[in-house]
Amino acid sequence: MDIAILLFDGITPLDAIGPFEVLGKLPGATVKTVGKSKGEVRTKGQSLAMIADYALTDVEKPDIVVIPGGPGADALAEDTGVTGWVARAHETTAWTTSVCTGALILGGAGVLKGLKATTHWRAMKDLQSFGAIATDQRVVREGKVVTAAGVSSGIDMALMLAAEIAGDEVAKAIQLGIEYAPEPPFDAGHIRDAPQDRIEMVRSGLSRP
Amino acid sequence: MDIAILLFDGITPLDAIGPFEVLGKLPGATVKTVGKSKGEVRTKGQSLAMIADYALTDVEKPDIVVIPGGPGADALAEDTGVTGWVARAHETTAWTTSVCTGALILGGAGVLKGLKATTHWRAMKDLQSFGAIATDQRVVREGKVVTAAGVSSGIDMALMLAAEIAGDEVAKAIQLGIEYAPEPPFDAGHIRDAPQDRIEMVRSGLSRP
Repeated sequence: MDIAILLFDGITPLDAIGPFEVLGKLPGATVKTVGKSKGEVRTKGQSLAMIADYALTDVEKPDIVVIPGGPGADALAEDTGVTGWVARAHETTAWTTSVCTGALILGGAGVLKGLKATTHWRAMKDLQSFGAIATDQRVVREGKVVTAAGVSSGIDMALMLAAEIAGDEVAKAIQLGIEYAPEPPFDAGHIRDAPQDRIEMVRSGLSRP
Repeated sequence: MDIAILLFDGITPLDAIGPFEVLGKLPGATVKTVGKSKGEVRTKGQSLAMIADYALTDVEKPDIVVIPGGPGADALAEDTGVTGWVARAHETTAWTTSVCTGALILGGAGVLKGLKATTHWRAMKDLQSFGAIATDQRVVREGKVVTAAGVSSGIDMALMLAAEIAGDEVAKAIQLGIEYAPEPPFDAGHIRDAPQDRIEMVRSGLSRP
């Protein structure tokens, strides 16, 4: 079971690493990190680098596609080199997934037309421009297309997917392995509970996804 | 504010990336990824690579040290090149932290003697061998030493730390930015709720931290 995780300049690493830690532990899973070209990618602030081991053209029929988001995702949603690969891969995937603004790349590939989907709360309107039905849920499944909300939601999405693929017991063992019994210090992760000044604080770049 | 995050072969990437996404968004933060030497590190299964931008000797007085865990951590706990750096850095840090079996490296550096500390549930006994008081909490703070339990707990630890450093409002904005309103599909993240066969499934390597 080949799992292709897209890496790119301006990625939000947690979008990719959450699913990596979960899906990568599925029996028979092989994770392949793919990029527009092989090699180093960096976060927007340059401070963290990962390596794409494969160029897109090297991985043509992955079973699972994971498209993370981040500040660099907007440009890729209009990059036919990337969206064309996603559209072609989607024809034969078992699962096509996104985390955060990775949904915009799925949108650019035409994958979300007429489907309910989610993304980071900042990008909900952008999602609609691709014909998706923006849906305020942490994980949205439409057939084999699964989209997750902002950044950390990729962990929840991947556990749900792990259960679909390998059964609840395997998913629960993976959850135990990554000790995912969250205790956030605040109840502040969802925009519905957030005061306007905090939302502005995030929008102004304190923590751009 | 220099934040040094240790990367190494056999790392569990989420241990590092959780704190990266949170602490890296603090006002004035500069994240520096450090390794025994500069360059590429890989997970145990080889499928994911990150780049350490600095050798340990390049980063001598970081304000915050983050030591992730993973299958490679046990060996580093006995590697004086690494533990010596941790011990020296700890003399002047504002915060010395670990996630998962990164606590063993803090232990090897002598940082945890007589302190309450936590780690991945698999490694609780190993932690005691370093003179730590193994404590079953998701995040344990002892003065400037903060240890977190397995893998995903680094997100909770880092948000707590963000609040200590920059105040609750900044921490809540970061939490909103990473949309950390977890919805695990199962209540299976803590060993206290786990049946023995699931624990064995994890121990036998399905999802080694």
